[in-house]
Amino acid sequence: MKVKITVSFKKGIFNPEGDTILRTLNKIGYENVKKVGIERSFILELSEEMPEEKINEIAQNILSNPVIEDYTVTKE
Amino acid sequence: MKVKITVSFKKGIFNPEGDTILRTLNKIGYENVKKVGIERSFILELSEEMPEEKINEIAQNILSNPVIEDYTVTKE
Repeated sequence: MKVKITVSFKKGIFNPEGDTILRTLNKIGYENVKKVGIERSFILELSEEMPEEKINEIAQNILSNPVIEDYTVTKE
Repeated sequence: MKVKITVSFKKGIFNPEGDTILRTLNKIGYENVKKVGIERSFILELSEEMPEEKINEIAQNILSNPVIEDYTVTKE
């Protein structure tokens, strides 16, 4: 059983890595890229079903920073 | 128009960040997590359609390390 937790910046939070990539792309000839957003996904392989509550604990306490990041959970 | 480029380690390449997260989770009570894989996604917002060839250039040359990483492209 797999669970995918995807973490991204909340709206309005500045994303320095995406900004650097955007400026690099624009500089080297890819001018029609207007924004670069970044997400990180953690694919957890589980030996047995895990309650949603525990998955949310992992997402909030270990994999994301709830002050500046949001996460979504999808089961695969 | 949005294009999402997702980068992950090739099979068999050691993923130190995933391994650290896995050991941490196991240590603090989430013993039934057996593996942690990691993917990074770059969501490019484009002002106009970009040829697939150019998207692959960006993915290969800027966003991934083709020696150890694979990427997939999805249009949104």
